[in-house]
Amino acid sequence: MRTFAVATLTRPPFPVRVSAHVGEVRQQSTRWATELGLVRTPGAVRRLDRANAADLAGRACPDARPDQLRLLSDLFTWLFTFDDSCDDDGLGQDPGQLGPVVGRLLDVLDLLGGPTPPELAGVAGPTGAGLHDLCRRVRGQGSPRLLLRFADEMRDYLLALLWEAANRERDRTPPVAEYVQMRRHTGGVRPSFTLTDLAHGGPADATGRTGSEASTLDDLAADLVCWCNDIFSYAKERRQGRDGHNLIVVLARATGRAERRGLTDAARRFNAGLRTYLRLESEVLLDADADTVRFVTARRCWIRGSYDWSLGAGRYR
Amino acid sequence: MRTFAVATLTRPPFPVRVSAHVGEVRQQSTRWATELGLVRTPGAVRRLDRANAADLAGRACPDARPDQLRLLSDLFTWLFTFDDSCDDDGLGQDPGQLGPVVGRLLDVLDLLGGPTPPELAGVAGPTGAGLHDLCRRVRGQGSPRLLLRFADEMRDYLLALLWEAANRERDRTPPVAEYVQMRRHTGGVRPSFTLTDLAHGGPADATGRTGSEASTLDDLAADLVCWCNDIFSYAKERRQGRDGHNLIVVLARATGRAERRGLTDAARRFNAGLRTYLRLESEVLLDADADTVRFVTARRCWIRGSYDWSLGAGRYR
Repeated sequence: MRTFAVATLTRPPFPVRVSAHVGEVRQQSTRWATELGLVRTPGAVRRLDRANAADLAGRACPDARPDQLRLLSDLFTWLFTFDDSCDDDGLGQDPGQLGPVVGRLLDVLDLLGGPTPPELAGVAGPTGAGLHDLCRRVRGQGSPRLLLRFADEMRDYLLALLWEAANRERDRTPPVAEYVQMRRHTGGVRPSFTLTDLAHGGPADATGRTGSEASTLDDLAADLVCWCNDIFSYAKERRQGRDGHNLIVVLARATGRAERRGLTDAARRFNAGLRTYLRLESEVLLDADADTVRFVTARRCWIRGSYDWSLGAGRYR
Repeated sequence: MRTFAVATLTRPPFPVRVSAHVGEVRQQSTRWATELGLVRTPGAVRRLDRANAADLAGRACPDARPDQLRLLSDLFTWLFTFDDSCDDDGLGQDPGQLGPVVGRLLDVLDLLGGPTPPELAGVAGPTGAGLHDLCRRVRGQGSPRLLLRFADEMRDYLLALLWEAANRERDRTPPVAEYVQMRRHTGGVRPSFTLTDLAHGGPADATGRTGSEASTLDDLAADLVCWCNDIFSYAKERRQGRDGHNLIVVLARATGRAERRGLTDAARRFNAGLRTYLRLESEVLLDADADTVRFVTARRCWIRGSYDWSLGAGRYR
């Protein structure tokens, strides 16, 4: 897929920048995951190491303070290990098994990183303890608004996983529009944007977020990141016998054509989306205030960073 | 169920108050639903009229301005008619049919009540148009924070409906803890609280919402409202052949006992929850500021109001 992606996707025309702290954060995130018990076998540690969460974080936040970079890197680490455990344990295709797990993680989110009830450790396991630790540290940033936003977006992510599992169980490929909407949630890209905004100097306030142009730009940035991910990960997913929750498959099924054609359609959709993004971005940047510039910079770093990370990351091989 | 509920549930010890504007708002909400096409048959109009959304709104917000009361009454109207249409069309037990509908409504939420794209009317139907109108009016309240919160909570509601539909399709009764967590979302009680807070003078700010005691109290208020609803609606749901998404059924299945015992267990759980609520409320009210008093008053109105509305409402007969 790497060759196909390089040949067909427009390379996002934004500067390539990576944080100087990636090396140290990489070690810290791996230790965090190991000590929590998020990875338990040498194979799982290797898989996590290949994914290189810190590199993606370092590209999304090239100028971040190490602790905020670490927070984002730990979030990716949590998302990757949870995703892998859903695959390994068959949770991801069995809503009956996934439901209680999601329910417990939603209970954890309801704590908003506040005092830990004694029963938490026993009930929610390493995944719950890891999520609570992330919430606790987000809470520690001193912005209740940021905390609520992060918890809301993680909730959407978890609920969307149940949608995905129900589809898998009945071997359903969703229609394109439904897939595109739900894909904004299934990958955890929204809470990742939020911690990226934090590292770029704090998230936009509610007025900034509800502006029509800014919220459209934000949706489009999320789409581009997810579609890029779908294209790069397609071959690996196919090899592992994974299912239709990929833009390529969804597009192919919708038109009744071969998946090979879905590849081309997905690349075309990414490139068109990027053109729209660039046009809209230039409108938003006219007379932009400092907050808007920061918001746009963070989205640019994400779009370019996830493209470059996908090119290099072992997670998609 | 009315007799059982009166005999076993502790009547919430809060004052009974109802807005003087219920009559006019009731007519307005019915007209709104009719003009939008949310109700299309005389039977549907009768069913909506019996539900008496305005009465529930008037109990939740006895001192509200008529326009804010109307907004809450219209939200209930939207929730009731959507719930009924899910039953009538079989959407509620078929995630394959419900998925595209939810996807379109999530697209509507992403607009945040902003300018209406021309394609909206054609694609999202009366339900989408109604939801967009609600978002537009919430946006018109001039609080972007309120708007984001409302949209987030409606998103959780819609995603949780997919969980419910997937369970129904496979005839699954969720375990108690999972049910209690998801029930906070499946009934739309969270966005209803938010519009109630608006009518009580504005929602608590993020600092207030992330306080551990306040957020626990809020969760408990949501639980009490939902459980009360489950107990009052149980007989009607059973008569209609509806399924296990009711606290009574969930408790009975969890213990392997008869549903009759589930009834007693559910009432006991409600009464114990109310005792905990009262204890926690008295702690929160010690040295409370004006915002906290308003927040607690709104929750009290809800707990008592939904109990009284359930006693009187035709929706559960």
